[in-house]
Amino acid sequence: MLDSLAHASVAGILTECLHETEAIFERQLASDFPAVNDLCRHVERYRGKMLRPTLVILCGLAASKAPNERASITERHCMVACVAEMIHMATLVHDDVLDEASTRRRGATVNSLRGNETAVMLGDYLISNAFHLCSRVGEPAINLQFGEVTNTLCEGELIQLHHRDDTSLDEPTYFEIIRRKTAVLVGACCRFGAALSGAPGTTVEALNRFGMAVGSAFQIQDDVLDLAGKEEVVGKSLGRDFAKGKMTLPLILLLAHGSSAERLCALDAIQAHDGRTLRDIAERSGALDMARERAVAIVRSAREELDVLAASPVRDLLHELAERTVSREF
Amino acid sequence: MLDSLAHASVAGILTECLHETEAIFERQLASDFPAVNDLCRHVERYRGKMLRPTLVILCGLAASKAPNERASITERHCMVACVAEMIHMATLVHDDVLDEASTRRRGATVNSLRGNETAVMLGDYLISNAFHLCSRVGEPAINLQFGEVTNTLCEGELIQLHHRDDTSLDEPTYFEIIRRKTAVLVGACCRFGAALSGAPGTTVEALNRFGMAVGSAFQIQDDVLDLAGKEEVVGKSLGRDFAKGKMTLPLILLLAHGSSAERLCALDAIQAHDGRTLRDIAERSGALDMARERAVAIVRSAREELDVLAASPVRDLLHELAERTVSREF
Repeated sequence: MLDSLAHASVAGILTECLHETEAIFERQLASDFPAVNDLCRHVERYRGKMLRPTLVILCGLAASKAPNERASITERHCMVACVAEMIHMATLVHDDVLDEASTRRRGATVNSLRGNETAVMLGDYLISNAFHLCSRVGEPAINLQFGEVTNTLCEGELIQLHHRDDTSLDEPTYFEIIRRKTAVLVGACCRFGAALSGAPGTTVEALNRFGMAVGSAFQIQDDVLDLAGKEEVVGKSLGRDFAKGKMTLPLILLLAHGSSAERLCALDAIQAHDGRTLRDIAERSGALDMARERAVAIVRSAREELDVLAASPVRDLLHELAERTVSREF
Repeated sequence: MLDSLAHASVAGILTECLHETEAIFERQLASDFPAVNDLCRHVERYRGKMLRPTLVILCGLAASKAPNERASITERHCMVACVAEMIHMATLVHDDVLDEASTRRRGATVNSLRGNETAVMLGDYLISNAFHLCSRVGEPAINLQFGEVTNTLCEGELIQLHHRDDTSLDEPTYFEIIRRKTAVLVGACCRFGAALSGAPGTTVEALNRFGMAVGSAFQIQDDVLDLAGKEEVVGKSLGRDFAKGKMTLPLILLLAHGSSAERLCALDAIQAHDGRTLRDIAERSGALDMARERAVAIVRSAREELDVLAASPVRDLLHELAERTVSREF
């Protein structure tokens, strides 16, 4: 009973801090120009699970001296949480230019509504505001590290584009791409959260590894859902990855481990942009299950990193969050 | 004789510092991935007049205690010069996505060569590296101010897009757009150069105003050349501005001050994307000359700001640079 009260209280702290993060987000993007504000209001519809801000806040709590207290989370935690979400949303806005996706989060995308030009500039506005806000945190080391993270992220996207339509893309290259384009930012959220709470280096590094693993598992689950999810549940256009020549983990595993008949059939389906057939082969051949297993193993390694923390309701929440990464259907 | 020797020596210092800036540029963008490096090499072809790095260095020299000495320019000046050039090049790469321009600086654009997706990500890579390099300068105030400058720049681009095809765009709104999208960054280059040299606040502010005026005049001259320039001299696609619904100063002046016959004819030509006719009316009606006069007046006000500096060969060079902004044909 006491235990479940403690859990509810931590969930309450998280909700409150996420609200503060959202308020910072809106204040930061506010412009003197109504036209710019209209676009920013539109962008807020992109906001999804708030995974990155959640991890800054939970790791900030978990690594603090008082993991059950609201006071352990400072305004700087929320500012950093907001910076991470802005960068993430900028990549979504720019990815929509890339992917020509027509729907995301059940709302019209910026590019289909206003054209590629506006989507590009709006993404740039988010990136610029992210760095501006980051400079206001007053931690030059975090500024520098955020720059490194976004450099790595952009390289990941560029490498992925370089391998477009490359059906020979192997698993190690795939993992290097998702490490760069997804895992590094998620890891940084955990690291910054802990560092801002004054945690020792070993804790900061363990939580960085935790976040990187969660980010990788999250990306694999996205890949699985893009192939095998239900569009009405996921809430965004599916089957876009292979339609744009992006090789996802289930496809890589299918081409590497399927029978030669399955391989040939899959290559035809990729060429023909036939998502239904591809999904059937991936399911039947066991490639989808293999991809799911990869994600489950990564989540397991993530959860082991949490041993660095003392037992607490926040630590339980981090375990749960890692677990949900692969059980989610949207 | 002695005087011309002194001028040659300052020109030599500038060349040397621009080389150092280029070296920083290449080191900063270097990636472990050959594919990323290939793209970055391509981007270097975008490099044009190096106006922004030149202004950081010249204002850094002019505002220093020893304006004729190489030692007055530190590595930090060159790093800031490089940050400004990276941001500028990112806007060029992203503008090419916007404008569907097919040639720039006599080279194929990134988007026509590799697709919009790569152009967007490459621009992001430049922005990210710009902020990362900026964090390495070790001047948190410059970090914060660069963030403000790029926020303003993006707002300028968004407002411009908002007024696309808006033939009722008036002169004050036009000047507000170019202030944001061009003048503020050029002004910041002059301000940062002077501030890094330890100049007093009045000098820093005067040079900021100098740079903003030079930037505005530069943009107006770009507008004039887009309408009246010779493609083989300018070295990039011309007539793109009005083709994409972008109202430039000569057109705004033509629509505001031309006879009603000229107005009607101009609106038809804009609709029909008929650059030749538009150019003829703009020339005949005096609108092109009015635009040129606006730029000349702005350059005059820029040069007056240089009175804050003691006479020196660098100051002469700044006068010359301001003058060339409007006399250039490319």
